[in-house]
Amino acid sequence: MKLTILGCYAATPRTFTNPTSQVLEINNHVFLIDCGEGTQVELRRNKVKFSNIRHIFISHLHGDHSYGLVGLISTFRLLKREAELHVYGPKGIKEIITLQLKLSNSWTNYPLYFHELEGKESKLLYEDDKVTVETIPLKHRIYTNGFLFKEKAGPRKLLINKAVEYKIDVSLYKSLKMGKDVVSNDGKTIPNNLVTADPDPPKSYAYCSDTVYYPEIVPQIKKATVLYHESTFLDENQELAGPTKHSTAKQAATIAKQAGVKTLILGHYSTRYGNINLFKEEALTVFDSVELAEDGKIFNF
Amino acid sequence: MKLTILGCYAATPRTFTNPTSQVLEINNHVFLIDCGEGTQVELRRNKVKFSNIRHIFISHLHGDHSYGLVGLISTFRLLKREAELHVYGPKGIKEIITLQLKLSNSWTNYPLYFHELEGKESKLLYEDDKVTVETIPLKHRIYTNGFLFKEKAGPRKLLINKAVEYKIDVSLYKSLKMGKDVVSNDGKTIPNNLVTADPDPPKSYAYCSDTVYYPEIVPQIKKATVLYHESTFLDENQELAGPTKHSTAKQAATIAKQAGVKTLILGHYSTRYGNINLFKEEALTVFDSVELAEDGKIFNF
Repeated sequence: MKLTILGCYAATPRTFTNPTSQVLEINNHVFLIDCGEGTQVELRRNKVKFSNIRHIFISHLHGDHSYGLVGLISTFRLLKREAELHVYGPKGIKEIITLQLKLSNSWTNYPLYFHELEGKESKLLYEDDKVTVETIPLKHRIYTNGFLFKEKAGPRKLLINKAVEYKIDVSLYKSLKMGKDVVSNDGKTIPNNLVTADPDPPKSYAYCSDTVYYPEIVPQIKKATVLYHESTFLDENQELAGPTKHSTAKQAATIAKQAGVKTLILGHYSTRYGNINLFKEEALTVFDSVELAEDGKIFNF
Repeated sequence: MKLTILGCYAATPRTFTNPTSQVLEINNHVFLIDCGEGTQVELRRNKVKFSNIRHIFISHLHGDHSYGLVGLISTFRLLKREAELHVYGPKGIKEIITLQLKLSNSWTNYPLYFHELEGKESKLLYEDDKVTVETIPLKHRIYTNGFLFKEKAGPRKLLINKAVEYKIDVSLYKSLKMGKDVVSNDGKTIPNNLVTADPDPPKSYAYCSDTVYYPEIVPQIKKATVLYHESTFLDENQELAGPTKHSTAKQAATIAKQAGVKTLILGHYSTRYGNINLFKEEALTVFDSVELAEDGKIFNF
């Protein structure tokens, strides 16, 4: 998995900070997550090929997470895109986009599908043989979902030396990878676990922004490889977090600890703080594997 | 008058080119003209004080002229603006903005007025004692207006030495500036033109983008101080201008010549050309006072 942070600041785009957007590359998918104003320029700057983006996930309809969507959809049209595009987001997103396309007489020349969300339960949005994407219901000022991207477990790993030693025909290797016992060339039944090993544990990425401190999400994101959790405020401004339905760095770290994730990435910083390292220092008092999102930063995991 | 070009390229925002937006400062007004995606960042970069903008003029609803508007309106809200904001633009602009504010539960806390346009005749949009703004109906793929900003003629210039020589009481100077004849201290009627001179000729700025070559605008923009006219294409691609309802540099210069304006500013360049000086060279073959818009460039006139 490769995560490219296009923008990770709260509220409004500024000269040197971008609102929220990120690109998750996972098993040949290029998923765009949120799309604040200016996202299309950041995609160019980070050399993400536009035509590879087939799925866009919008957490909620605040401007810093969604105002760049109509421009990106329009630019795809100007670039004569042909590939399908799927947009997942809160109910209303289709009306917002189609109204603007209608009034500018700029219907897309490629298939554009909206998948509107409105329930309070987690919902499976996408599934193929290698990946699933589901919503993580969050608690913010307006209807908001995070997203959980999960690899499926791969095939078992064939121990080739053992397979030869047990005289197993090559035609049976596929069955072995699928976990089946097989019969060797000299007629013996070989238990699968003698000639295969467990696959790499599947990785997962949980994106949680924007949300107040909300431990109800913990069971769903348990043991995630990486959790991106918003930390708009520092603990010193904790009194602002509740009313605005945002989290502090300490609260984000508490969620990471409760869920036992491998790594926490912080983001969605208020621009009131001069130094984002303060977010990391605060989170490290609670949880020991903390990274800072920064515009243009790439995480491989 | 001071004109700041925030963006002057056609179609889509790119890493080093911005879509259309400009700021006209005239007689203590700060008028924003068009508002492509990213305009709020360019306003910051060019140090335009947000609260000074009271009037925004949107030529048409193509994205490269309007997709930055909702973000700017939202940012004004986050900055706790109190001053009125007036938005002038094609019918539909109110629905686009209010739908997005409604779905993000982000109503503005300042008075926001929409002035929707739909007629094909020129219309007076704004007038005070020093300035008028009127639409210039243009011809593009969708309903589009340019805008003509005109200073009103100022008071006559008092020739102070002459006023003393003719023994005119100071209390009458205001009447002199208003063009009236007055009676001197020794009882003589003094004709106004003996003690005053003509005021500076009022300046005007005609903004014409986007439009096909459309000589019907010439009478309205006659003798304008500055004409900004789109030149999406060079003459070598003239065959593209008609169908897309855009102009070439040569056509823009022809309009400038027919209207007898003082200076032509070219802009709205297609990014297919590597060197924008080609636009100027082409226009100079027709008209002799040509300037090139460039992102971040300031014109004083």
